[in-house]
Amino acid sequence: MEGDFVVTPWQVTGDIDYDQLIQRFGTKKVDQALLDRLAGYGPLHPMLRRGVVYSQRDMEWLLDLYDKGVKFSLYTGRGPSGNTHLGHLMPWIFCKYLQDTFGAPLYFQMTDDEKFLFNEGLSLEDTYQKAMDNALDVIALGFDPDKTKIIIDTDCIRTLYPLSLKVAKKVTFSTAKAVFGFDNSTNIGSIFFTSVQSAPAFLPSVLEGRNVPILIPCGIDQDPHFRVTRDVAESLGFYKPALLHTKMFPGLTGGDKMSSSVPDSTIYTTDTAKVVRRKVGNAFTGGAVSAEEQRKTGGKPEVCAVFKYQYYLFEPSDQALDDLADRCRKGDVLCGECKKMLSDRLVHFLEGHQRRREEAKSQLGRFIMRCE
Amino acid sequence: MEGDFVVTPWQVTGDIDYDQLIQRFGTKKVDQALLDRLAGYGPLHPMLRRGVVYSQRDMEWLLDLYDKGVKFSLYTGRGPSGNTHLGHLMPWIFCKYLQDTFGAPLYFQMTDDEKFLFNEGLSLEDTYQKAMDNALDVIALGFDPDKTKIIIDTDCIRTLYPLSLKVAKKVTFSTAKAVFGFDNSTNIGSIFFTSVQSAPAFLPSVLEGRNVPILIPCGIDQDPHFRVTRDVAESLGFYKPALLHTKMFPGLTGGDKMSSSVPDSTIYTTDTAKVVRRKVGNAFTGGAVSAEEQRKTGGKPEVCAVFKYQYYLFEPSDQALDDLADRCRKGDVLCGECKKMLSDRLVHFLEGHQRRREEAKSQLGRFIMRCE
Repeated sequence: MEGDFVVTPWQVTGDIDYDQLIQRFGTKKVDQALLDRLAGYGPLHPMLRRGVVYSQRDMEWLLDLYDKGVKFSLYTGRGPSGNTHLGHLMPWIFCKYLQDTFGAPLYFQMTDDEKFLFNEGLSLEDTYQKAMDNALDVIALGFDPDKTKIIIDTDCIRTLYPLSLKVAKKVTFSTAKAVFGFDNSTNIGSIFFTSVQSAPAFLPSVLEGRNVPILIPCGIDQDPHFRVTRDVAESLGFYKPALLHTKMFPGLTGGDKMSSSVPDSTIYTTDTAKVVRRKVGNAFTGGAVSAEEQRKTGGKPEVCAVFKYQYYLFEPSDQALDDLADRCRKGDVLCGECKKMLSDRLVHFLEGHQRRREEAKSQLGRFIMRCE
Repeated sequence: MEGDFVVTPWQVTGDIDYDQLIQRFGTKKVDQALLDRLAGYGPLHPMLRRGVVYSQRDMEWLLDLYDKGVKFSLYTGRGPSGNTHLGHLMPWIFCKYLQDTFGAPLYFQMTDDEKFLFNEGLSLEDTYQKAMDNALDVIALGFDPDKTKIIIDTDCIRTLYPLSLKVAKKVTFSTAKAVFGFDNSTNIGSIFFTSVQSAPAFLPSVLEGRNVPILIPCGIDQDPHFRVTRDVAESLGFYKPALLHTKMFPGLTGGDKMSSSVPDSTIYTTDTAKVVRRKVGNAFTGGAVSAEEQRKTGGKPEVCAVFKYQYYLFEPSDQALDDLADRCRKGDVLCGECKKMLSDRLVHFLEGHQRRREEAKSQLGRFIMRCE
């Protein structure tokens, strides 16, 4: 085992060494040259400036085509196993920036089949219902209804299945084992599933009748699926999809990933102000043992979950972020104040999101892809 | 290796020891008690009388329910990898007897997905087109249009997929390996496929909203799929399907199975009279080296492909069959005469079949299951 962390589409544990993950997965760092180039299309998103979006595949190729007038489509998705939390929203917010900046259509896959297959305790009815519920969070982020289609796997399987079969025919169990760590006890649906996650990468080409370049913004944990997609793409007559990978959104209780299995590490999009303030109040910080001590020694923003939330998602100004880190290190700002500031922002954000989420209920019909 | 023959859904080779297959698969012989009981519902089909339908699972249970007024549905199918031949028709003809005798609805699955996944040289477009073509042969046999639905997998996958997922979640790669002989080089679509072949066994229950008993008449080579189906059925809240297994239809050139890979062993439903006469003319028989010799020593009907065709499918009278065997053994009838007799019958049968096959083109809409 290389390092003592595990990152697969179904398991993220340990302290993630993101640079080592680039080595392990064989991706490329988002470097200054790419950032400079992306800045040419519109203001750089904070997640790009701050290295939250940090890894990529084939972005130069995609932008070369774009510069020649070849439009690409976006593809991302969600495994609807429960309520949406901020860790899910983060890459979607980045995805919206991409849609806005490049005017790109978005195909958003809800893998209700996957979550049923991989979770002993979930029925297909559960995951379908969660797919419809999670769709509200996608819509609430403000994606363009004329350019966004939410694909629910079990509803759209007739459209996805022929593409899935073509992928599946080219992937052996050996490959699935090596990429996903399956073994003989894995169920045969889970083994097949990656084919269904590949299909939307080729769907725009089928629908538009031309070879459509695809950009997939997603958490780095999803890269294994798209390695499979990329490996088979050209032999099926499609382009390999390009990727932009985000780091995992940190948990409030510390740790590298917000996870529904640790409820207090997680802010759900439906959490009330009271719950948010309680969870942030209990967050892991970089503070000292006492206020007095902290005023003397200062805090450690680089390990602080509260600071990370501002860094990853909530503080748009780099200057303000630097100032905050600086004041923390000097002991000029204490954890209580920081928690109050983040709670206020979270509560404000969620109030707006929850309002738009309610409004989204009447918009589902515009966004959900109708399949035969 | 137990015996030197192989019988799986994708490979039938060697001299099949049908009794040993009952042991190997764990099925039950169709015994005299079952034949007597079946005779109570209508005249016994010759395939039952002659042991062509020779193995079963849970038939007594199915008939007990039927006697109490619980109607069952029939389920069988076809892997549309090429043109239909007599080996395919045989179990369908038996299936029609079951529909007629028990007034049972029939779900007939066309596995265009399977044949794509398992055949390197076939595209999904090929197998879909063959599914539509093969459907004409099903319809031509005279199934009741009000009670028969032909399911084409890629068209109906939205209906089949939820059931397939529920099956797949309960079947590990270990099981698939043990049942089908898969290994690490098997593609992940092939590994998943058995789930899709299980789905129609549970579909009537979903459509009718009650637990519907199912009887699957099929070649013994298909039993492994339905072992998987039976193993998961009860945990999904369905009955285990009952089965009636046919032996494999013999090849004209000798050997235990008509096979498209040996074209001259095979009579296709679209063969012309001329082709039929040529193939039967070249058939493997139980005759002696010369006519003179044969008049002396007699022939061996038990090894003769021409005799087997009469036995399996074309001679309805047991008495006539016994007489023919008797005359052959005594040297009173020679191979040329037997070949002429069979050719005449085949040509006559195929003329009618081909006419009904043409008529079936306008009936496809009544038979093909419409799926969302």
